[in-house]
Amino acid sequence: MNELNVPCGGQGRCGRCAVIVDEGRVRRRSTQRLSPEDVAAGFALACQTVVDGDAVVTIPPQERIERHLKTEKKAVSIVFPYPYDPQTQQPMQRYFVQLDPPSLEDQTADWARLQRGLRQEHGLQQLTATLPVLQQLGRTLRQAEWQVTAVVELSTPGRPQDSARLVDVLPGDQTGAMWGAAVDIGTTTVTVLLVDLQTGEAKARAADYNAQIGRGEDVISRIVYASKGQGLTDLQRLVRETINTLLARACRRGGVDPRHVHKVVITGNTTMLHLLMAVPPEPIRLTPYIPTVNDWPMVRAEELGLAVNPEAGVDCLPGIASYVGADITAGMVSTGACDSKALSLFLDIGTNGEMVLGDCDWLISCACSAGPAFEGAGVHYGMRATEGAIEEVWISEQTYEPTYRVIGEVQPRGLCGSGLISLLAEMFITGVIDKGGNFNLDLNTDRVRSGGHGGEYVVAWGSETEHGRDVVITKVDIDNLLRAKAAIYAGFDVLAKSVGLDLSDVEQVLIGGAFGQYINVEKAVQIGLLPDVEWDRFQFLGNTSVRGAFMALLSREMRDRVAEIANRMTYLELSADNSFYEAFTSALFLPHTEIDRFPSVAALLK
Amino acid sequence: MNELNVPCGGQGRCGRCAVIVDEGRVRRRSTQRLSPEDVAAGFALACQTVVDGDAVVTIPPQERIERHLKTEKKAVSIVFPYPYDPQTQQPMQRYFVQLDPPSLEDQTADWARLQRGLRQEHGLQQLTATLPVLQQLGRTLRQAEWQVTAVVELSTPGRPQDSARLVDVLPGDQTGAMWGAAVDIGTTTVTVLLVDLQTGEAKARAADYNAQIGRGEDVISRIVYASKGQGLTDLQRLVRETINTLLARACRRGGVDPRHVHKVVITGNTTMLHLLMAVPPEPIRLTPYIPTVNDWPMVRAEELGLAVNPEAGVDCLPGIASYVGADITAGMVSTGACDSKALSLFLDIGTNGEMVLGDCDWLISCACSAGPAFEGAGVHYGMRATEGAIEEVWISEQTYEPTYRVIGEVQPRGLCGSGLISLLAEMFITGVIDKGGNFNLDLNTDRVRSGGHGGEYVVAWGSETEHGRDVVITKVDIDNLLRAKAAIYAGFDVLAKSVGLDLSDVEQVLIGGAFGQYINVEKAVQIGLLPDVEWDRFQFLGNTSVRGAFMALLSREMRDRVAEIANRMTYLELSADNSFYEAFTSALFLPHTEIDRFPSVAALLK
Repeated sequence: MNELNVPCGGQGRCGRCAVIVDEGRVRRRSTQRLSPEDVAAGFALACQTVVDGDAVVTIPPQERIERHLKTEKKAVSIVFPYPYDPQTQQPMQRYFVQLDPPSLEDQTADWARLQRGLRQEHGLQQLTATLPVLQQLGRTLRQAEWQVTAVVELSTPGRPQDSARLVDVLPGDQTGAMWGAAVDIGTTTVTVLLVDLQTGEAKARAADYNAQIGRGEDVISRIVYASKGQGLTDLQRLVRETINTLLARACRRGGVDPRHVHKVVITGNTTMLHLLMAVPPEPIRLTPYIPTVNDWPMVRAEELGLAVNPEAGVDCLPGIASYVGADITAGMVSTGACDSKALSLFLDIGTNGEMVLGDCDWLISCACSAGPAFEGAGVHYGMRATEGAIEEVWISEQTYEPTYRVIGEVQPRGLCGSGLISLLAEMFITGVIDKGGNFNLDLNTDRVRSGGHGGEYVVAWGSETEHGRDVVITKVDIDNLLRAKAAIYAGFDVLAKSVGLDLSDVEQVLIGGAFGQYINVEKAVQIGLLPDVEWDRFQFLGNTSVRGAFMALLSREMRDRVAEIANRMTYLELSADNSFYEAFTSALFLPHTEIDRFPSVAALLK
Repeated sequence: MNELNVPCGGQGRCGRCAVIVDEGRVRRRSTQRLSPEDVAAGFALACQTVVDGDAVVTIPPQERIERHLKTEKKAVSIVFPYPYDPQTQQPMQRYFVQLDPPSLEDQTADWARLQRGLRQEHGLQQLTATLPVLQQLGRTLRQAEWQVTAVVELSTPGRPQDSARLVDVLPGDQTGAMWGAAVDIGTTTVTVLLVDLQTGEAKARAADYNAQIGRGEDVISRIVYASKGQGLTDLQRLVRETINTLLARACRRGGVDPRHVHKVVITGNTTMLHLLMAVPPEPIRLTPYIPTVNDWPMVRAEELGLAVNPEAGVDCLPGIASYVGADITAGMVSTGACDSKALSLFLDIGTNGEMVLGDCDWLISCACSAGPAFEGAGVHYGMRATEGAIEEVWISEQTYEPTYRVIGEVQPRGLCGSGLISLLAEMFITGVIDKGGNFNLDLNTDRVRSGGHGGEYVVAWGSETEHGRDVVITKVDIDNLLRAKAAIYAGFDVLAKSVGLDLSDVEQVLIGGAFGQYINVEKAVQIGLLPDVEWDRFQFLGNTSVRGAFMALLSREMRDRVAEIANRMTYLELSADNSFYEAFTSALFLPHTEIDRFPSVAALLK
């Protein structure tokens, strides 16, 4: 058994010890975490299964317990979703030319000579260049003895005759490589992918906290900071430094000179992109919540101080509103939901909760200011998902004693978002708290007690913790978490109602964002954070935003799709919608005032 | 007589005292400086004319003796050559829009809102903006309560539906003005015109020495300097500072905020534009003399550090070769010779001598490295045309005593270009020197003597001069001047021969450049610097380069004309032309080995 992950300690609750019974008879005591299809396919929970005689069992590759910010690895699993043909999809191209050296008889200027060579040999008809490229041109041409590789960004892939921009001139034949970077600027985390534009592979990944965190945890506090003195300049510098550190790291891992990164595609929420571009973000937080820019002009890396080739085009993807940014439009494209006939709900839970409902014909989106409760803010022992954070909790129905798993397998210091959801669900299911989040102080356990902030539950005694204090969750914490989850659920609710649909009609729930990657669906449904649909309709997609940037970086078609999505997506401003407050109030209970909406939870409670 | 200019002291040689005899009889002793047409029209030289009885004489407005760098004045005479219609010719336009303020119901982003307003009210369909404009946009829109003036550069004048760039957003209705600057960067002098783009008038002019002079007098020494260490950066800074000082001065005179200058057009020789753009100029001076760029990309003022609106487009006009730059193409357009059926010779004598021969069907150009002898370099008492420079000399045929005119009417310090030409011609005509430039030491005058550098002629005794030393011209000086004038004449010669024409076929000689403005045609012909055609075929046009920039700034059609001229002009590289050396050697005499080429001089010598 010690080869298997059993995070719940063998209660049959986490479902992570599922194995496949290939041969032999087994008796399943519980299949609570398995779908009927899973069971039909032979899955069984190792901790809940008795083997009746000989059996052959396949143990699936054990789920990696990936930590936030520890997902960096050389071999990146992101690959382009369909056959990648750089000739027809990729605007960045390299062309080798052997120019006739100038002479007294042929006095064509360097720049015109290069244009002529590229026109004659590669059909580039309308090539332009910025000044910095021309400043290097004469020297490079002469040092390379008139044999150079032109790095060119075409306006239309496969059509060199259309307008194109000369991005770089390299000595000799260097047509064997072409690099780009996809960047996702999250409020909390920045992720960079180094991408081989000739093979379509992500060669290296790097991620780290957004250095702006020290100036405010959420977008609102960043905006406030940006409004004061040199705040905007400071925030721009911080995110630039973060990106540059990650670019350098990814390039080191990929063995690529950063000056050979000739294209950058960036996503992020609307505030993050305003801060990167040093466009004052104040109007985003003030009613009626208007961003200055949704569609960004192409800029050069030098203009932003990005540490790649200074002439690299930087393409910030378009968002649609102050709180539905490029992370969502790019994320949608990466899921493919916008091309599917199936009714999909796309959800990105980060510091805010953004969501999109729709299919290939229509899309409607909204954003809930859930606040950063699930990122640990507003919760006494809340913390980010770093070492020492309790990330999952199980409570015994008999003793009310908890079992927990700590990131880094060290002494706990507090609770991260997934730990809080897990704890809330366990307390509710085991009766430690009622549907209003109130503690049952009559239970026969010293874990539940009256504390300085009303009732509280002790998750870890001081003797177990790193700091020696009891890690507890209080009524105040619970109220904050209820407000956060109610805001998100109310968002779903209003979106569905606005188009006359019911959440149970949703055919797939696509969950993006780093936070979504660690969420336990069962527990998220139990607290009413996610709608109660069959578990197999949920897909956890990880960082859909950076994946969208990756796809837009590789393919003009995908880039155009992001713009098209941004154009056709309807945005519902919840503060302008009267039904939101009602939906929010109804969702302030565990799992919801209307328990009928959560049949699986209702069944469990019985 | 003291109302009349008599620069030659009444010898009938300068022709500047010409008056019109309206009534009465006069007897003309000499009409040497008057054409037959002039005489027919009633002109007479006041100093050479005896009045027989009553007469009515009209004195024409006296020629202004304009000094280099003293031509700055508020009222600038440059005006557009045909009716100016900014609607159809001017790409820079201002549009006032009153936008609907955003609301919870209309959440269009600021930039999209402005685009929508400009599209609906003014038909701008494809408006783009750079990042710095968007960085200011949100604040301006809100402070101006959504009523703003967009400053836009159209890709095609009169066609707002084509692509266009937003250059600035001003609060309120500021459609009543639009400013641009035309800049000519000469090796010696930089000239700036502040231009009202709505009326087509040059509102103010400012000119001063190019601060790069301290790093070398001619383009070659600048290129050498640019090749060393931070030389290029230093030269770029110096010319930027010169331009910025002049822009500030012109704006102050015109009462215009420099930030309201939204467009700049720049001309200059190829080296000057390379230095402005910080493109390494080395290849220009090394065989085969190839510039890196003839066709410059449009840049923004901020990229060059020009002190106008940072988003102002800066359009450097195209040149055609290392030594035939935008000053010549723009100059040609300003003369109109490229649209005329008349065979024209356009000549710009500055530090180099560039020339163009042709008509509306063909144009051929070349450049002679005349060197800066006519700017005073390589001549012992040579100096620039500033205070204390002798700018014209007359020598008595009887006594060999000189009369001279000094810029600023102060004690002389040396001789400037026009003074040197004048002196050379006078010495030749009066026999002080022979056609080889050798002194006649047998003359009965102490003005001619043997000096440290062979023979020399004393123009001013030490008792008359500012520094107390005799101002002389030596055989060495003369040889340098002969080489300079021979190079220029040989250029004419080779150009004409290359197309099978004779210089006497030239129907107009158009002389541009500050130096050309002060040249005395008669004397220039006498030394063989200019071809011996009728004087009325000469036109002195002053700074044709800045006038070309002015016209390109006002009219897209004129701007396109410059590019068209650059495309169709043939360039003859003299160092690749075997006939040049022969022509040069033949021209090393006064006026030329073949005296038949200079019939008027031959007649005079008889």
